[in-house]
Amino acid sequence: MNYPNGIKKNITTTKSHVDHSNRGMSLESDINISNEYYREKEIAYIYKKPTPIKIVKVDYPSRNKAVIKEAFFEAPSTTDYNGIYQGRYIDFEAKETKSKTSFPLSNIHPHQIKHIRNIYKEKGIAFLIVRFTTLDKTYMLLAKDFLTYIDNNDKKSIPLDYFETNGYELKNKYMPRIDYLEIIKILYGGI
Amino acid sequence: MNYPNGIKKNITTTKSHVDHSNRGMSLESDINISNEYYREKEIAYIYKKPTPIKIVKVDYPSRNKAVIKEAFFEAPSTTDYNGIYQGRYIDFEAKETKSKTSFPLSNIHPHQIKHIRNIYKEKGIAFLIVRFTTLDKTYMLLAKDFLTYIDNNDKKSIPLDYFETNGYELKNKYMPRIDYLEIIKILYGGI
Repeated sequence: MNYPNGIKKNITTTKSHVDHSNRGMSLESDINISNEYYREKEIAYIYKKPTPIKIVKVDYPSRNKAVIKEAFFEAPSTTDYNGIYQGRYIDFEAKETKSKTSFPLSNIHPHQIKHIRNIYKEKGIAFLIVRFTTLDKTYMLLAKDFLTYIDNNDKKSIPLDYFETNGYELKNKYMPRIDYLEIIKILYGGI
Repeated sequence: MNYPNGIKKNITTTKSHVDHSNRGMSLESDINISNEYYREKEIAYIYKKPTPIKIVKVDYPSRNKAVIKEAFFEAPSTTDYNGIYQGRYIDFEAKETKSKTSFPLSNIHPHQIKHIRNIYKEKGIAFLIVRFTTLDKTYMLLAKDFLTYIDNNDKKSIPLDYFETNGYELKNKYMPRIDYLEIIKILYGGI
């Protein structure tokens, strides 16, 4: 794996922070802060998974210290975030795009799409959070609607208006910054 | 963080593989193989989380290649395994001990205990899987029983007989090797 997901996103993050600093932080930061808020308020326990890394060489310069001296990024086999909300399994991927018109599907690995499909079939709550950074718009798209699009279109991207019609806009708030569980609560009201 | 969880376990794993090769593989291998089996049979989607690592230095020897040249292990803030089984959130930690009489609680970080408590309160299915390697016995201990012990004892370890009385023995099978979902299915029959 070269230039994997994690790294690509980190580069994007830094850039977008510089380009659009007036618009706030990266989507990843916003989500991490929101997840911390959910944990502190004992609302939900949702974490970002560590980036998978293949360790090749570890040095022990002193008895209690381990330093990784050679390692490589591996492709993630699942989505970046998962956890629990009121007993329900939550699973999602978060992506930014600079496009003003569509979300390029090259942003999502085929095995991540397969994973989202598996979670959906297993009755988990799976979704994407996509931010169109240039437009400063953030949408949640449920697995059902994401998979419907994938299964019925040959396009290489999902147009913005599909998000506008089938997704849920997540407006920036103060706390939590991206309140995606508000939508989940409304949609799965019974829980 | 020095000599973190992941590394310690890897060392233990290698050793126990050499010492007890007639007894099969390490607990971690057994669980990973079982989780693969569950995924292939579309029974459940449970994954081991990557070891958290703080990356300090990355080299790009060629345009498409990233090599991590300096990184450190970080303490995991959650348990090692989580995922979904029939819509339910599953979360557990797996540990081996060489002791014949008790499971030393120093094997579980305080923030992992806190995490197990959070998941239990949030109505997730959380548990420990503990293997007494010298005895070749493996037990599942539900969060409820684990927390009951922790909250009512000052001891630094959980005696074997507590596992025998309150836990569920997981016998080695051919496929899946460690069928912990069989117990979950019995206990949460309604799902």
